[in-house]
Amino acid sequence: MSNKKISTRAEDYSQWYNDLVIRGNLADHSSVRGCMVIKPHGYAIWENMRDALDKMFKDTGHVNAYFPLFVPKSLFEAEEKNAEGFAKECAIVTHYRLKNDPNNKGKLIVDPEAKLEEELIVRPTSEAIIWNTYKNWIQSYRDLPLLINQWANVVRWEMRTRLFLRTAEFLWQEGHTAHSTAQEAIEETLKMVDVYETFVRDYMAMPVFKGVKPEHEKFAGAEDTYTIEAMTQDKQAIQAGTSHYLGQNFAKAFEVKFQNKEGAEEYVYATSWGVSTRLIGTLIMVHSDDEGLVLPPKLAPVQVVIIPLFSKDEAVNNILLDKAYELSKNLKAKNIKVKVDADDSKRPGFKFAEYELQGMPVRVVVGPRDLEQGKLEICRRDTKEKYLSDLSNIEEHIITLLDEIQTNLYNRALKFRDENTFEVNNYDALKDVILNKGGFAIADWDGNVATAEAIKTETKATIRCILEDIQDESRICVYSKEKAKHKVIYALNY
Amino acid sequence: MSNKKISTRAEDYSQWYNDLVIRGNLADHSSVRGCMVIKPHGYAIWENMRDALDKMFKDTGHVNAYFPLFVPKSLFEAEEKNAEGFAKECAIVTHYRLKNDPNNKGKLIVDPEAKLEEELIVRPTSEAIIWNTYKNWIQSYRDLPLLINQWANVVRWEMRTRLFLRTAEFLWQEGHTAHSTAQEAIEETLKMVDVYETFVRDYMAMPVFKGVKPEHEKFAGAEDTYTIEAMTQDKQAIQAGTSHYLGQNFAKAFEVKFQNKEGAEEYVYATSWGVSTRLIGTLIMVHSDDEGLVLPPKLAPVQVVIIPLFSKDEAVNNILLDKAYELSKNLKAKNIKVKVDADDSKRPGFKFAEYELQGMPVRVVVGPRDLEQGKLEICRRDTKEKYLSDLSNIEEHIITLLDEIQTNLYNRALKFRDENTFEVNNYDALKDVILNKGGFAIADWDGNVATAEAIKTETKATIRCILEDIQDESRICVYSKEKAKHKVIYALNY
Repeated sequence: MSNKKISTRAEDYSQWYNDLVIRGNLADHSSVRGCMVIKPHGYAIWENMRDALDKMFKDTGHVNAYFPLFVPKSLFEAEEKNAEGFAKECAIVTHYRLKNDPNNKGKLIVDPEAKLEEELIVRPTSEAIIWNTYKNWIQSYRDLPLLINQWANVVRWEMRTRLFLRTAEFLWQEGHTAHSTAQEAIEETLKMVDVYETFVRDYMAMPVFKGVKPEHEKFAGAEDTYTIEAMTQDKQAIQAGTSHYLGQNFAKAFEVKFQNKEGAEEYVYATSWGVSTRLIGTLIMVHSDDEGLVLPPKLAPVQVVIIPLFSKDEAVNNILLDKAYELSKNLKAKNIKVKVDADDSKRPGFKFAEYELQGMPVRVVVGPRDLEQGKLEICRRDTKEKYLSDLSNIEEHIITLLDEIQTNLYNRALKFRDENTFEVNNYDALKDVILNKGGFAIADWDGNVATAEAIKTETKATIRCILEDIQDESRICVYSKEKAKHKVIYALNY
Repeated sequence: MSNKKISTRAEDYSQWYNDLVIRGNLADHSSVRGCMVIKPHGYAIWENMRDALDKMFKDTGHVNAYFPLFVPKSLFEAEEKNAEGFAKECAIVTHYRLKNDPNNKGKLIVDPEAKLEEELIVRPTSEAIIWNTYKNWIQSYRDLPLLINQWANVVRWEMRTRLFLRTAEFLWQEGHTAHSTAQEAIEETLKMVDVYETFVRDYMAMPVFKGVKPEHEKFAGAEDTYTIEAMTQDKQAIQAGTSHYLGQNFAKAFEVKFQNKEGAEEYVYATSWGVSTRLIGTLIMVHSDDEGLVLPPKLAPVQVVIIPLFSKDEAVNNILLDKAYELSKNLKAKNIKVKVDADDSKRPGFKFAEYELQGMPVRVVVGPRDLEQGKLEICRRDTKEKYLSDLSNIEEHIITLLDEIQTNLYNRALKFRDENTFEVNNYDALKDVILNKGGFAIADWDGNVATAEAIKTETKATIRCILEDIQDESRICVYSKEKAKHKVIYALNY
């Protein structure tokens, strides 16, 4: 924990992000190319996300299971589009033994005699291994639906990596469901993107746009990909979660059929959906500021930090400590996550800066003079507002304040998102948003990939999602002037 | 779910175990050699184990983090003994890209141009990658202790695998702590083996012997390995958890030094400790019976299953269902995990057998005649005892019964373990235990590996752990007749 200042957003947004991840103790680079170490503070946020999501999945009828890390190459390539989508970024296991290097004592080499007959792909996603398993589990409509989720690590050999946002290995959950009708599978797909929208709103305090990806941007192997897209503080889009309707593509690739109620054989319908540790990066990008992380109370590993202002008078210090621990105990009894920092080797100012950096939502300072007056100093992380609060109702006040901070973060992000989202009627206006103002441009699109590609080439903006289909014959595409098919969001993106 | 009977323990213990895992819906074989699929019922048991252990780790001051799946070969080989211990069973990533097979349309081959400069080992354990990271986190005694745990998957390329007991990939937790003194690290090692002992006693209802491994059986790279050893129903030993004092071995291999309070540089002291999904196999081996799984209430995903006995009278059925759901609601309010099985397409007898197979601790049958008399039928899984219970205090009764079952399972296992554990004074008696009676033989050992090896060759029994050191000069080794150094447990083992 050096005193080196972190970069500001205005100076260098990208460096600011990186500083926050490292200095905020969320993650660290590792000695494995593109892989990160998730540090305790970062992992605790992930645990909070996981627990909240897991409950939402279970409340909607899903159960967890665990499937193998490795996918044999022959299974990996079975669903061709999916295979094509991931083939270029796979970690591949080819051997299963090391042996002593005969030329270099104490060193090991790969044993050439321990070559696998069939290479194993470290899962970049688990549709292949899971649908090859479902084949054995599904015979009749009575076995359906299968509503299974997995919490796991996956590996995608990305060339340009960034802590949390794009790493070679990341943690995620992947739901894989099997259904007897297309309609039921589509309903599941929509239900899960709604679960994600609710989660990011209620826990991450993040507003998102929800919609379907255009054909050319969908998941490899899907019929339709639904997405939620958030806006970062540098006014770019960041995909926060996706839910895929996979139709019968995987059932056909893995020959997964069921006998329907009428006794006829049919291919099974599938969905898959996932969110990952990328959400931690998204959280930073949306809420944090130049002083450090700003964590929504509902996901903060420590919601309230209590700091006694030590003096040279041991007796006074003991009173401060007693008060700090009493408050801590009372808050814990109300399920608030509290930390008392009783370390007397560090100055208060150092502590304040450190906790600001790490994003603790509420700081309570127990000072001798305030305490004499029956008050404690409260500082909220979101607004950095400081004030004295009466001891008499301090617990209730803090609980209300945590809710208020949660709400304020959402409203602030929503206001920012709305202020930087523009409905545009012509291409000049679209370019002005993307190239000058920054933000999301909502515009009508003719549905042609060529149009999307041309706009991407000229502005780097991509279509983030389709907001609605257009029936009105009179509306035209901002670029081609052809008849518009969809109202979409254009934005630069992470 | 076929009606094929499972094997009995007496017929074929090994087949019985396998039948229970598969037919009890805990796990399945996968198409990846040696890797299993953990099915929802099995994974739910693991989640319960994980949550209980995680709380115990946090209550003892530990935090979770996450380290990379891959270990570069140069790091892997840094601690030589550890490397030697795992080199022969490693999955090795050598390439990072597939490409289209030019000779076989739609097929993929490993792209020879995407060969890694340095091979990556899929972690069989994480000491290497973690201590290479700790190097950057530890400068001074103020940074110590580091008390970190990780929940993760690991891969050991075992040649002979068995569901849960020995699989190529498994899930586990691995604690890795760093300390400024040997004494503190040793205390941590002992504390964590105690945590494991408490966990298996209080949650798994399993008595264990706790002790230190003899030198020749310890973890590769450790100074001392502490273990807990349970007894299976075929009277063999099964290692349920280990805690290692690593001394300064990893600190020296990775150059992890700290400045002590006196300003001098010292190598850091380490521990590591872990339990894995193997515990699920252990649980089966200790408690289950010829009808199927027997799960301790504290780990059962469903503690109480309520089955209405449907008749042809719709009105009566509705009354049964109402009662079933009312009881379910009341039990859930008391944090009992309940399932109502309202499926009218399956016969009650089929359901009874199915839930027995899956190990649900308590079955409640809601029958029309019993209900008229103000009673419900209760069946407990551990003893298969059936009786009628008054509706008036049914919730309290069930809650007490669950505790009783938990206690009974422990006592039954303890009785069995004690009845099959023998203190022996001579080698003939030891052989009689191992080769004829079955069970654990407690005997005095001279501390020589040669003695242990000779006994292993003659009986296949190994030393499971040292129970105590012997000071008494008159005691002799049962095999060599030399002066005895340790009192140890000999047993066949999984």
